[in-house]
Amino acid sequence: MYRSHTCGELRASHANKEVTLSGWVQGVRDKGFMVYIDVRDRYGITQLYFDEEQTEASILKNAQKLGREFVIQVSGKVQERASKNPNISTGDIEVLVSKLTILNEAKLPPFTIEDDTDGGEDLRMKYRYLDIRRNPVKDSLIFRHKVTQEVRNYLSKEGFIEVETPYLIKSTPEGARDFVVPSRMNEGQFYALPQSPQTFKQLLMVGGMDKYFQIVKCFRDEDLRADRQPEFTQIDCEMAFIEQEDILNAFEGLTRHLLKEIKGVDIEKFPRMQYDDAMRLYGNDKPDIRFGMEFGELNEVTQHKEFNVFNKAELVVGIAVPGGNSYTRKEIDKLIDWVKRPQVGALGMVYCRCNDDGSFKSSVDKFYDQEDLAKWAKITRAKAGDLICVLSGGTNKVRAQLSALRMELAERLGLRNPDEFAPLWVMDFPLLEWDEETERFHAMHHPFTSPKPGQLELLKTDPGAVKANAYDLVLNGNEIGGGSIRIHDKATQSLMFDYLGFTPEEAKAQFGFLMDAFQYGAPPHGGLAFGLDRLVAILGGQETIRDFIAFPKNNSGRDVMIDAPAPIDDEQLEELSLKLNLKS
Amino acid sequence: MYRSHTCGELRASHANKEVTLSGWVQGVRDKGFMVYIDVRDRYGITQLYFDEEQTEASILKNAQKLGREFVIQVSGKVQERASKNPNISTGDIEVLVSKLTILNEAKLPPFTIEDDTDGGEDLRMKYRYLDIRRNPVKDSLIFRHKVTQEVRNYLSKEGFIEVETPYLIKSTPEGARDFVVPSRMNEGQFYALPQSPQTFKQLLMVGGMDKYFQIVKCFRDEDLRADRQPEFTQIDCEMAFIEQEDILNAFEGLTRHLLKEIKGVDIEKFPRMQYDDAMRLYGNDKPDIRFGMEFGELNEVTQHKEFNVFNKAELVVGIAVPGGNSYTRKEIDKLIDWVKRPQVGALGMVYCRCNDDGSFKSSVDKFYDQEDLAKWAKITRAKAGDLICVLSGGTNKVRAQLSALRMELAERLGLRNPDEFAPLWVMDFPLLEWDEETERFHAMHHPFTSPKPGQLELLKTDPGAVKANAYDLVLNGNEIGGGSIRIHDKATQSLMFDYLGFTPEEAKAQFGFLMDAFQYGAPPHGGLAFGLDRLVAILGGQETIRDFIAFPKNNSGRDVMIDAPAPIDDEQLEELSLKLNLKS
Repeated sequence: MYRSHTCGELRASHANKEVTLSGWVQGVRDKGFMVYIDVRDRYGITQLYFDEEQTEASILKNAQKLGREFVIQVSGKVQERASKNPNISTGDIEVLVSKLTILNEAKLPPFTIEDDTDGGEDLRMKYRYLDIRRNPVKDSLIFRHKVTQEVRNYLSKEGFIEVETPYLIKSTPEGARDFVVPSRMNEGQFYALPQSPQTFKQLLMVGGMDKYFQIVKCFRDEDLRADRQPEFTQIDCEMAFIEQEDILNAFEGLTRHLLKEIKGVDIEKFPRMQYDDAMRLYGNDKPDIRFGMEFGELNEVTQHKEFNVFNKAELVVGIAVPGGNSYTRKEIDKLIDWVKRPQVGALGMVYCRCNDDGSFKSSVDKFYDQEDLAKWAKITRAKAGDLICVLSGGTNKVRAQLSALRMELAERLGLRNPDEFAPLWVMDFPLLEWDEETERFHAMHHPFTSPKPGQLELLKTDPGAVKANAYDLVLNGNEIGGGSIRIHDKATQSLMFDYLGFTPEEAKAQFGFLMDAFQYGAPPHGGLAFGLDRLVAILGGQETIRDFIAFPKNNSGRDVMIDAPAPIDDEQLEELSLKLNLKS
Repeated sequence: MYRSHTCGELRASHANKEVTLSGWVQGVRDKGFMVYIDVRDRYGITQLYFDEEQTEASILKNAQKLGREFVIQVSGKVQERASKNPNISTGDIEVLVSKLTILNEAKLPPFTIEDDTDGGEDLRMKYRYLDIRRNPVKDSLIFRHKVTQEVRNYLSKEGFIEVETPYLIKSTPEGARDFVVPSRMNEGQFYALPQSPQTFKQLLMVGGMDKYFQIVKCFRDEDLRADRQPEFTQIDCEMAFIEQEDILNAFEGLTRHLLKEIKGVDIEKFPRMQYDDAMRLYGNDKPDIRFGMEFGELNEVTQHKEFNVFNKAELVVGIAVPGGNSYTRKEIDKLIDWVKRPQVGALGMVYCRCNDDGSFKSSVDKFYDQEDLAKWAKITRAKAGDLICVLSGGTNKVRAQLSALRMELAERLGLRNPDEFAPLWVMDFPLLEWDEETERFHAMHHPFTSPKPGQLELLKTDPGAVKANAYDLVLNGNEIGGGSIRIHDKATQSLMFDYLGFTPEEAKAQFGFLMDAFQYGAPPHGGLAFGLDRLVAILGGQETIRDFIAFPKNNSGRDVMIDAPAPIDDEQLEELSLKLNLKS
C-alpha cells in the first residue's frame, strides 16, 4: 500500500492519526534543525515536518537532500499546525514524518511546476507530462472529463444511444482534406480517417437507431491556424422522425443542462437569430451577444454628399463605442492603424465623436453636417460620450472588418465577461457559399443539408439565395455546434450532388452507398455536432483549447513530445506498396 | 411533430387516445375489407388497423399499397384488440388509423428484417443499415451502449478521469504492425495509429493523473483471423502509487459491478491461477473454468511400457470426458479425425473407455494392463462411464491440441452455458516468449512490463523463466483484459530494451520520450486494458464480436458497405509526396 490518504485529504480532524502519503516534492524549506517539505499529488499539497528533536537523524538528513519533483512515500503522525495556511485545503495540518522512502529521483524539471510557470509554450509542450502536473492543465483535463460525463449521462437519460462508427473509412474529395491510411492488405488502396461520422450517423438513422450520439475524434488535414488541431473531438448527434424544432429543443436542453450543472447558470430559453440578421447586425455568423455595439448601416445617410469613399462603397456601416469619446486623437489613430493591419484589412476608418453637449465632431466634417451626424448616431444608437467608428467597402469584407473591430473593442472594454454565458441559435444559413478560388458554389454546411421547403427550385436561378435547414449554436461569440436537417431521399440528394459539380459517376463512387440506403426506407432526420474542445474551453472560461487537450499538436501538426510524425522503415513502405516522392 | 408515441409504448390504458406514430412497415395483412399493418421502430411494433366501415376509402386503398419497409406516419385512435398478442409489449392494442402519410418509399429489402433473417453474412454486411433494423443487431448495439455507460459511471465514481490520448502518434516496430498516416505538412514523414495508448497513459502517470481510463479505438494491421478487426475498442486503464493487488481489486470491482448490474450475477471473489498452472491443467492461458475436465499428466504411468509413441513424447496428457463411454466406435473415430485436422494438428489419439463395472478398455491394450489404466483414470479423475482421451508430443503443442479438444467436447456436451459467468485471474505470466520465426525472445505483454522482484538477474541466464508482474482477466474461456505493473525507472527500462534486441540508438529514437519522462519523477504504476468488443459479446452471451460492432470490417479488412479502402486521386498522392509501388 503506497498511501492511506491523498495529499488533499487530511484535516484537523485527522490529528494524531498515523498516515502514509505518496507524491512529488513541491518544495523543501530547510532551516537546518527543522525541515518543511510540501508533497503534492493530483488531489492537493500536504506539508511534511521534520525536526532534530522528533525526527531520526538519518531521516532528517535524507529529507534535506530531496530535490524538487522527487517521488516520495512518507509515514507519520498528523498534527495541527502552529500557523495555519487558509489558502490550501490541508492548511490546518502537517505530518510529522517518521519514515521516508524515495520512490524515484528526479532531474531538475526544465520549468517550475507552479500555476504561473516560467516555462514557455514550446518547453511545456515538449515536457507535456510535467506540464500536466501543473494545476491549470490538470484541472482543465479533469474539467473536460466532468463535462463529457455530464453529456453522456444527459443524452443517455434522454434515450440516445452512443454508437461507435469506424475510423478507417473512405476518402472523399468534398470538404476539407482527408488524412489517408494506406492499406497493406488491399494494394494501392487507402482508408481515410473521418472528418466526421456524418454518413455513418445518417446510415444509423436509416437503420432505425433514431437517437444517436458519439463523442468521437475527427481528423482534418488542413494548414493549421492558431488554435486548430489536426485531430479534434466532436459530440456528434443525430435524430430521426424529427423536425428542426425537435433538434433545437433537444440540444438546447443539453446545453442548458451543462450550463446549469457545470457553471450553475440558469438560462431559460436561448434566443434565435436569422443568419442574415447576424451578418447585418454583427457582421458575423457567430455573434457575441453579451454586449451590444450592433452595426448601423449608414448608406442612406452617407451617400448623399460629395464623399466619394462612401459613395462608391457597397456598404457603409458603423458601431458606437460606449464611452469612446474619451479616446485621445492618438488613441483613435492607433485604432485606425489596428483596422488597417493586414489581418483586418480595412483601408481606413471614419469616426465621429459624440460630445456630451449633443454636438458631433467627425473626421469627415468637410462633407457631413451636424444633422447628418445626428442620423449616424441615431442609426448606430450612439449616446453622448460615445465614439462612432465607420467602415466602408464591399459588403462581406467590410462586415468582417467591423466585426473584428467590434470584438477587439469589446475585449479592451472588458465587455467579454468569461463568467457570463450568452448562447444563441443562428438559423437559416445559406445552402451554398461562393468560393472565390475555385469560382463555384460549395455546400456551406455539407452536401447532405436540405434546402428550406420550396427553395430547391431557386438553385437554378439564384443558388446563393437558397436557404438551408441549417443552424449553429453560438456561445459567447464562438460556434460551439452546428447542424442541419438532412436530405433523406435519393432524388434530392442526386440533384444536390449535381449542383455541387459532381458527375453522376463521381456521386455514385463516393456516396453511392448513402443514396442506395435512401432507397430502402430512410426516415426524415437531422442532427448537430458540438466541437467538444471549444465547448469545454468556453465553459472553462477560456478561448484557447490547447490546455483542455492532454497531448495537443503544434501549428505544424507535430507532437513535439514524442517527435511525431517521423520517417518509417523502408520495409514498412515496401509492405504498403508505396515509395516516397519527395519534392525537396 | 412526427410522433406522439413510439411503436413500443402503447398499452390498453391508452385506449381511445388519439396518437401519431412513425416507423417502418414490418408487414401488411390485407383481407380486402380490412387491413392490418405492423409498424416498427427502435422501440417495438404496433398493429395498425384499417377497415371498410371505419376507414376512409382512399386511406384504406393507400394502406393496401404499402410495401415492406416503407416509412409511414399514421394518426388514429388506440383501441383494445379483440384477440391480444401476449408476445409483444403492445399486443393488447391496435391503432384505428384515420390518417396515413408515406414519409418515404422503400425498395424491397435484399433480406427479411426479422430476427431470423434469410440474409447471409455478406449481404447483411453490404446492407448493414438494414441489418441494424433487426432486433438481434439493434439490441446488441444498445447493450454495448449500456455496458460502456456502466463502465464510465463506475470508474468515474471511483475517481478515474477519462483522458483522450492522440490518434496520430509515432510508428514503432515493436509488437504488431502499425497502420501509418502520411503527413502532408511534414514531407516524407508518417504518423501511426495507436495499437493502444500504452505510452501515453504511462506519461499521464508521470504527469500525476493517478487514475486514468479511456474507452478508445485501437488499430492493428494484422492479417485478420476470424473475429479480429483492424480497429477495435479498449477500456484502457492505468493507476499510479499502486501495487499489483490494488489493480486486481480495482478492476475485479469493475467487472463484478458489470456482472451484477448488467447480468444480475453476484460473484464474491474472483479465483486466481498461476499461468504455469493454467497451462498445466488446461493447456491454455485463458481456461474456461465453468467445467472441469482438467488435464492429467500421464508420463509417469505411461512411459514404463513398450509403447514408443508415448515413450519418446515430451508430454503424455489426458482428459476424462464425462459420459464419454457411451460414444460408439464410429463417434470416437470421428473425434480422432477431429484432432488430426490441420487446425488442431495431433498425430493421433489414444483413448480408454471406463466401463460401468470398473474395468477399462483402451486402444492400446496391447501395452497397458488394467492396473496401468486405473492409474490413468485416477490421474485424469475419470469415473465409470467416462472416456479418457490421451494425446502426446511436444509439451506446448500437445497442450494446445488437448485444450482445443477439451473446448470442443465441452461445447458438444453443453458445458459452456452462456448464462453462467466464471471469471478468473491468470497471474505471473512469463516476461518473454520465444519466437520460432525470428529465433529470439519477444516481450510477451509489451516491453514496459516489469519482471517479478529479484528476477531481473535471471534474464541473463534463463530468460524464458523470468516471470512478470503481468495478469490477465479471463471470462468463460476468453481473455477479456490484461495488464501489468510497469517499469518506472530509466535503468530497468533501458536494460529491458537491451534484452529485447534494441540498440541504445533505436531505444532512444523510439521511446526516448518515455525514458526521459522516467527521469523527472515517475511514480510506481500499472494498469490493465479490457477488450470492449469481446467483453460486451461475452456479457451478451455470445462469442463472436461482429454483431456488437455497428459497422465491422470483413476478413480482408474491407468495409463492404462503403467499399473501403479505395484508390485515391493522383493529386492526393502527390500532395503527400508519395508514389504507388505496386507489386502486381
